Parts: sequence; C-alpha cells; structure tokens
Amino acid sequence: MTDTTIAKLSDFVGEEVRLSGWLYNKRSGGKIKFLQVRDGTGTVQAVMVKNELPEEVFALYGELTQESSLIVTGLVREEPRSPSGYEMSVTGIEPVQIADPYPITKKEHGVEFLHNNRHLWLRSSRQYAIMHIRNQVIWAIREFFYNRDFVLIDSPLLTGSIGEEASTLFETEYFKLGKAYLAQTGQLYIEAACMSLRNVFCFGPTFRAEKSLTRRHLTEFWMIEAEMAYCDNEGNMKNQEEMLSHVAQSVVKNCRSHLETLERDISKLEGITPPFPRLDYGEAIKILQEKGSDVKWGDDLGAEDETILSNMHDKPVFIVNYPKHAKAFYMKENPDNPETVLCSDLLGPEGYGEIIGGSQREDDHDKLLARIREEKLPEKAYDWYLDLRKYGSVPHSGYGLGIERTVTWMCGIHHIREAIPFPRLMTRLTP
Amino acid sequence: MTDTTIAKLSDFVGEEVRLSGWLYNKRSGGKIKFLQVRDGTGTVQAVMVKNELPEEVFALYGELTQESSLIVTGLVREEPRSPSGYEMSVTGIEPVQIADPYPITKKEHGVEFLHNNRHLWLRSSRQYAIMHIRNQVIWAIREFFYNRDFVLIDSPLLTGSIGEEASTLFETEYFKLGKAYLAQTGQLYIEAACMSLRNVFCFGPTFRAEKSLTRRHLTEFWMIEAEMAYCDNEGNMKNQEEMLSHVAQSVVKNCRSHLETLERDISKLEGITPPFPRLDYGEAIKILQEKGSDVKWGDDLGAEDETILSNMHDKPVFIVNYPKHAKAFYMKENPDNPETVLCSDLLGPEGYGEIIGGSQREDDHDKLLARIREEKLPEKAYDWYLDLRKYGSVPHSGYGLGIERTVTWMCGIHHIREAIPFPRLMTRLTP
Repeated sequence: MTDTTIAKLSDFVGEEVRLSGWLYNKRSGGKIKFLQVRDGTGTVQAVMVKNELPEEVFALYGELTQESSLIVTGLVREEPRSPSGYEMSVTGIEPVQIADPYPITKKEHGVEFLHNNRHLWLRSSRQYAIMHIRNQVIWAIREFFYNRDFVLIDSPLLTGSIGEEASTLFETEYFKLGKAYLAQTGQLYIEAACMSLRNVFCFGPTFRAEKSLTRRHLTEFWMIEAEMAYCDNEGNMKNQEEMLSHVAQSVVKNCRSHLETLERDISKLEGITPPFPRLDYGEAIKILQEKGSDVKWGDDLGAEDETILSNMHDKPVFIVNYPKHAKAFYMKENPDNPETVLCSDLLGPEGYGEIIGGSQREDDHDKLLARIREEKLPEKAYDWYLDLRKYGSVPHSGYGLGIERTVTWMCGIHHIREAIPFPRLMTRLTP
Repeated sequence: MTDTTIAKLSDFVGEEVRLSGWLYNKRSGGKIKFLQVRDGTGTVQAVMVKNELPEEVFALYGELTQESSLIVTGLVREEPRSPSGYEMSVTGIEPVQIADPYPITKKEHGVEFLHNNRHLWLRSSRQYAIMHIRNQVIWAIREFFYNRDFVLIDSPLLTGSIGEEASTLFETEYFKLGKAYLAQTGQLYIEAACMSLRNVFCFGPTFRAEKSLTRRHLTEFWMIEAEMAYCDNEGNMKNQEEMLSHVAQSVVKNCRSHLETLERDISKLEGITPPFPRLDYGEAIKILQEKGSDVKWGDDLGAEDETILSNMHDKPVFIVNYPKHAKAFYMKENPDNPETVLCSDLLGPEGYGEIIGGSQREDDHDKLLARIREEKLPEKAYDWYLDLRKYGSVPHSGYGLGIERTVTWMCGIHHIREAIPFPRLMTRLTP
C-alpha cells in the first residue's frame, strides 16, 4: 500500500492508500461515520461504514477525539460534492495518540484565548490559509529579486549605531562594548553594499519598542529593504510597483484555495498591476483638506489621512515628495523644491495604509552632514555612512516593505497579529 | 546610445554603450591609459587612446582617483586576453564624484583595519565573490524547501521562553512584561507549526552571547531550521543530504567565476551528492581513541575531534545517536539503546566541522517532562511545548543548518567572519 498525502490523492483514485494526519472533526450518521482528516497538505473526508469494517475498527470512532493523530488507510474515490473532489472509504485506522480534550472548539473564543493558544490555533483552517499566503508572499519577493540579479545582503540585527527613532529601540548589554541596539532598518548597511554589488536587498526581522497597540503595529515584524546604485526615485518607484504586482499575481496564481478559505475578493488582487497612480504630497494635502481633514502642509500623514487617500484608488498609490522635515535625514533634497525630498510612501488599497516607504538618498556629503547635525544625531556613529559619500558617491535609491502589512492586505484580514506565526505586541511575548 | 551593465556587454559588441560604475584601478602606458571599471555586475578594462579623445577627456585620467564614480561611454570590443572576454574603447568619460584618497590600497592591511572599513572592504573582488556565493547558498536552500512544499514559518526573535544554553542569551527589557531574550533557535516554534502544516522551516538570525573568539563563532549568525511531522531521524538525514547536495550543486552551477576568484577547488563541491556516510557515535569514539584523542564515551565531540572525523571523508559525514546526556532535552530516546538519542550531527568535509545538528524529537509527553525536570528547566515556560504532546503528538524530526559555516565551507575560506556582510563578534559591533 502506498503512503501518500491528501494533496496527492488525485493520483490514486481507485487505489488503497495510507494517510498520516490528525482528526480535524467528526460526525456520525449512525451506521456511517465521517472523519474529517487533515494532514498538513489538505483535508479529506474519510467514511467509515459499519458493515465494511471489523467491529473493533468501527469502534475507534468513539475513541478518536478532536486533534488525535492517526494513520488512516482507505480507498480513494472521486466525490464531486466534496470541496477537495475526493473522499476515502476507510479500510483501517491506527490511532497514533488520542488527544486530551482540545481547548479550541467550534464555539467562539476570545482573541486573548486564541493567542495564548497560538501554538494550537495555527491548526485552524483560517490560520493555515494565512500562513500559506505569507509563505507565498515571501517566496514571490525573493524570486523577484533573485531573477533580477539583486544580491541578498543580510544586515546586522545587533548594532552600535543608531537608526531612526532612537526612543523606540530595544537595547541589550554587549560584552565589554556597552549597549547594543536591535536594528530598526538595514538601510544604511545595504547602502554601503550597493556601492559594491549595485542592486541589493536585505530581508529580516525588525524591532520597534513602540508603545502602540493598534491593529497595524507589531514590536517585531519582517521587512524587505532594497537598495539600488545609479537609480533615482523614479526608478525606485518603478521597481516597487513591479515587485508588488509580481507578489499579488503570484499569490492569486498559487494561493487561490487559501484566498477562498479567507473569503478574499480575489478580483481586488488581480487588479494589482503596474503602473500605480502617483500623487504629489501637496495635492494630497489639498484633497485631504477638502475632505475635512485638519492636516496642514508640513505634517506627516496620519493613519486616518492615509485611509482616505488609500480608499480613493483600486491600486496602491504613491504619495511623492514629502516636506523635508516630516521625513528622515537621509532623504535627498528635491532640487526643484528644496523644502521637499525625493521620496514616496506607497499606500495599499482598501484602506490598508502605508506598506512601503522609499526615497532617493542624499548623496552629497556636505548636505547629508548638515542634516545629521540639524537632527542632532550622534555624528560619530555616522562616520562610516558618510564615507559612502566620500568614496565614489552615486545617485542611489531604495525602499522598505513591511511583510505583515502586505500579508494582512493580501489576505484581506483585519488585524496584523494574524499575519505572523507568533506575534509580538507590547502586551504579548508568548508563546 | 544604450545604457547597459558590464554583465551584458556581450550583447553589444561593435556598439557604443554607456556604463555607470566606479574606478577599480588604473594604469598608464603613456599615450594609452587603462581604466579598470567595475559596476557591481562585473569589471571591464576601458582603454583611453590619446589621439582618439579630446584633450580634456584624456586629461581626466589624472583626476580619477581609486573608487571615483564615473559614467564611461565607449565602443565594445571582443578581447580574448581579457578575463571577461571584452574591452571598451573609451569615447567619453563623465566623473560623478572624485573620491577622497581611498583607505584600502594594494598593500597588505590588517584584519582589524579591514573590518573597521567593512562598509568599503565589501567592494574588493574577494568579498564581492563571497557575497555572491552567500546569496546563492541562501537562494538554493529556499528553493529546495519551496519546491518540496515546505511552508516558511518565521519564528519569533524576542521570546519569553528559554531555549538551550541560558547562560549565553542576550536579554532586553520588554515593556511591563519583564525580560525578553533573543532567540537561539526557532525549533520549538516550528515543532508547533509542523503539527498544522506538516513540513515547515524557519530561516532567520540567531544570537549567542558566547565568550568565544574562534574562527567558527559569531554572536549573530543565520540559521535555517526545518521540521517535519511524521518523519523519523532516517527521513530527517535523507532530507539533510538532499538539501545540502542541492545547495552545493547550485553554487557550482551558478557561481563558477566567484569560486575561481576565491581559488576554490571546485571538484570538492562537485562531489557533494547523496548519500553521505553515517558513523555511529560509539564507532566514532573508538576511531578517535585509536587516533590518540582522549575523548570518552559520553562526551560531546570537541572541535578537534570533529576535524579528525571530518578529514576522513570527502563528503559530509553524519555522526548518529549521541549519548542522551551530551545532547538537548528534546531529543527522542533511542528505543534500541535508551542511553542514547535518535540524533545526528553533520560534519562538513575538509575539516569544516559541524554544520548541521538534527534529531527526532521526543514525542512522549511524560518522557519529555521528565527530561525537562532532569535538566532543571523552568517547567512553566515549556507548558505550550508540552501541549504538542497532548494534542495529537506524532513522530517528528528536524534540524538546523548554520548559514555562515556553510558559506565558509563552500567558499573554502578560513574564517567565518568573512561569510557575513557585517560580522558581529564578542569584540566587534560596528560598522
């Protein structure tokens, strides 16, 4: 008899096979019992018929509790009424471990309860679907960059230098060297690397010790950052829209059943293709003011402002050239309007808000140094970063995409904490 | 005129093109000047001929310092004597930024000096090659798992639970929840996930606050960990040898020029194919004792022991079934010899030592709890991990591969610190 998985059942119609999995659910129709068996590749209904099975095997139905592990043998049949298209006529059952009463049942559970049981909750069909979509999003991103000869440059997580927003850093003692900080960005490092390898990216976890408990914040999240030498912010935006469109189409193509599990409107993702609309920051402010926002020129956009702009388009929208003082010190001054910088935030559609921040980088040594001083950043920590403007400085641009925000959007779910296997929030560090 | 890159010059023989890059080196032959130009995709010689160029362009040769950024236009020619096979006859030069005197010159520099200038050192041909090979190693690993339907499950970096080796943890304050620790493994988390998704992996940075300064240790390194439900340690080893062979062959196929830059003996990597030899721990001890080691049955193997065993084979070698008390609490007791566990360490060839540690996991709740108590681990922190043995426990196995050790071996280099873009050692936290 062949050992196989539920995903491959279509290859074995009419044959007897052996599956190893878990009991997801069961229901009794008297002399016929139905087992919903999952094995990590799919779910199948296994049908037990009293007069086709030895008594002791049929009796196992009563013993098998939810989430018990088991080996099932049976005959594979096509079954048009089944969601998977197949069913199994049970010929044998071998319990592996009879589960204790399973804490997650069909009744409604509170969010805290589910997160306390995250190690088990991952088995639910919804979380299973989200994890598959997350897997596809990350694969598609890496595939995009690999196929374009970008070189992965893993940036350090422990760092002595200070990135942006020093108040939200986690810190740790580092041997005799004093404090180390958990990095909030790899950008400065990949700027160095792009002067060697031209097109590079980093992709790793990122930390923000931010005291905010919104549905869009995690203290630990994953970010892909790309950096391109000899590339201006136009080229930067082009890369972003191509990358993100590739991701959306890859999810649509490879995760249809998972999107259906989540009742996602797939047409919304199918429409994510280049180019994306662009809106000048100044225009955005006018639109927002007309719509009643009290935002003023010079402000960074708040979450509500972003939602308004985001809801105006079916595609992600770039907001370009923000005021210099609303943005980070390293962004390149806009030669056409030195009060602004050559940057873009990309807002996801359907109200999902900012998912990418990008800019051309200041490549002029003296202008960069002036901005470091203006922001009162520790000049010495940026010595090596300033070096990049002394030894063959070139126009260069890059961006960072938040993975969990992207997954939240692709999945069409409400809260970012479901978009990562084991979320870390201000109030949660376990399991 | 076409903008292109050095990697694509073969498409433009006989045409005039424009390259953007940096001056890697230059040399003068009087009325002919030679520029070595690199652009992050390759290096090409650009030839300046005095009587073919306007005087002011020819004069730029004197101004262009090492690592100056520049745009070069010229006619592409085949040139069999050139390593790349092509050369360029310069028609124009536009300096982008004239570099300050570059700190890294042709003379020998000390290791500390080079690491202090890591942000510039990455531009050297040797580091450029290593970063490409690292990129390929990581891509090949992800490709292997994606093509086998493994689901990426990013494990948390900040954790309240304690993994192995509590004394070597970095810690940080975590809001009102007390201390958080930087994870040393994602294994426990992916064990939970494999009960949902069957075959999973995590791939992220890992931290060891270890006070060791050897050529095989970093305080921050990257690790891929895989976990498979319904898989015993035999299946586990099979997956490891297939994965690692795929990586070696992918590097051989895609990084030949980079391996040549490093003067790597490529035949050594070509020979990395399944199966890998297996050596029982007990046999290994006997061999080591015969060779004069004072290792005793019951000890874990030291670096020198590993080197001896590693040097006996052209392929990586599995050392299987170590004594229980030399290994971590979660390894499954060997039913044939309860003093040992079902585990394997994989030693790289050519003396590169341990690159993978793997095992079948203890799936019996009571045996696992007994081991947790025996090792005096904080029982409460493992509640959720023990849950996995209550709710549908199944045989499962997994392993962890150190990326930098693998890159060091593939590259044939001596010290692990060159195998990561910005190394973190006990004595180094910058740049």
